[in-house]
Amino acid sequence: MKLYDYANSSAAYRVRIALNLKGIPYDRESVHLVKDGGQQHSSAYKDVNPQELVPTLSVDGRAIGQSLAIIEYLDETHPAPPLLPSDPAQRARVRQIAHTIACDIHPINNLRVRSYLRDVIKADQAQGEAWYAHWITLGFGALERSLSESKETGAFCHGDAPTLADICLVPQMANAYRFKVPVDAFPTLVRIDNAARALPAFAAAAPERQPDAA
Amino acid sequence: MKLYDYANSSAAYRVRIALNLKGIPYDRESVHLVKDGGQQHSSAYKDVNPQELVPTLSVDGRAIGQSLAIIEYLDETHPAPPLLPSDPAQRARVRQIAHTIACDIHPINNLRVRSYLRDVIKADQAQGEAWYAHWITLGFGALERSLSESKETGAFCHGDAPTLADICLVPQMANAYRFKVPVDAFPTLVRIDNAARALPAFAAAAPERQPDAA
Repeated sequence: MKLYDYANSSAAYRVRIALNLKGIPYDRESVHLVKDGGQQHSSAYKDVNPQELVPTLSVDGRAIGQSLAIIEYLDETHPAPPLLPSDPAQRARVRQIAHTIACDIHPINNLRVRSYLRDVIKADQAQGEAWYAHWITLGFGALERSLSESKETGAFCHGDAPTLADICLVPQMANAYRFKVPVDAFPTLVRIDNAARALPAFAAAAPERQPDAA
Repeated sequence: MKLYDYANSSAAYRVRIALNLKGIPYDRESVHLVKDGGQQHSSAYKDVNPQELVPTLSVDGRAIGQSLAIIEYLDETHPAPPLLPSDPAQRARVRQIAHTIACDIHPINNLRVRSYLRDVIKADQAQGEAWYAHWITLGFGALERSLSESKETGAFCHGDAPTLADICLVPQMANAYRFKVPVDAFPTLVRIDNAARALPAFAAAAPERQPDAA
């Protein structure tokens, strides 16, 4: 199993956490998203992932892109420990939290979108920073309300063991800290993020622990 | 089962297709995304879905947001016909296609993002249209290559029966047509979209067939 990875990709960060939680050994190939004009745009990497994004998981001759597709695959092929509850309604709750981040916060703030905003729309730095903070603040506000009002929230987003929801939350919180987006209004998210990052599987997946960290 | 729905929401369109394919009867409540300054922002709807987005599926006293979380739930609770293959690697392929659209095309072009671009960033109409076309063209280019090069592509995105991938493709193609984004470079996508829309479950879910259509 080989992960095409980059330290500061938060989608790749999710997959690193999942692999660590499952205890799955893997090889790693760095795809530096900035160096060489973006190594994800090389023709060699396009053959692996035509979307020119990381992560990609290469396994049994197949290249799987999209972090949540990869993590669902890992959960189906390596069931212990589970990253989703067994009950369908609870699985839906966990996926809803995960997708709120993975669909409605992260892609809007992704590197390629910020680059387009700067280079094509000609947004200045202040507008770019306000954009970034806006989508995090909006998404985190909804999540804070959902999580703080639900009895299903525990030490982690769903109960007292980490799930796909925490796997998405931690890299998104890391982005908020990195871009200095205030998180005081989201005490439940801060509490869960701190609890998750204290786990070795999460800690070892952190961007600063990767060999291609900035 | 009640779906909070809006004709022109392509995320809601996905869920309508899934419900129709499964033959699940449902009540419908319209949440008009434009009227009244956006009914999704009402405090009554915020109590249902703090994200202030459609769709939401209300079932057994639980409100599930996020279209893909809803569809996975429907597939787990109403297994026939399946919307995902049984083999984990093939499931990953279908989810990868679905997430390429649901994470990396659609949210960047969503109503709230276009409104922010126009009202806060002050992008003009031409910039807004170019933005919309850019993300569709980029995502469809990657999908066209993936689908046209794979022997697993059949009459539909994966084999000869509709899956979650087609459920995401058809509403995204509808958006492309609606905003006059050229699709000539994506013959495989056009072929599959035509095949899917010919199915009654897809046809009945089309925006123009909904009671709150514009």
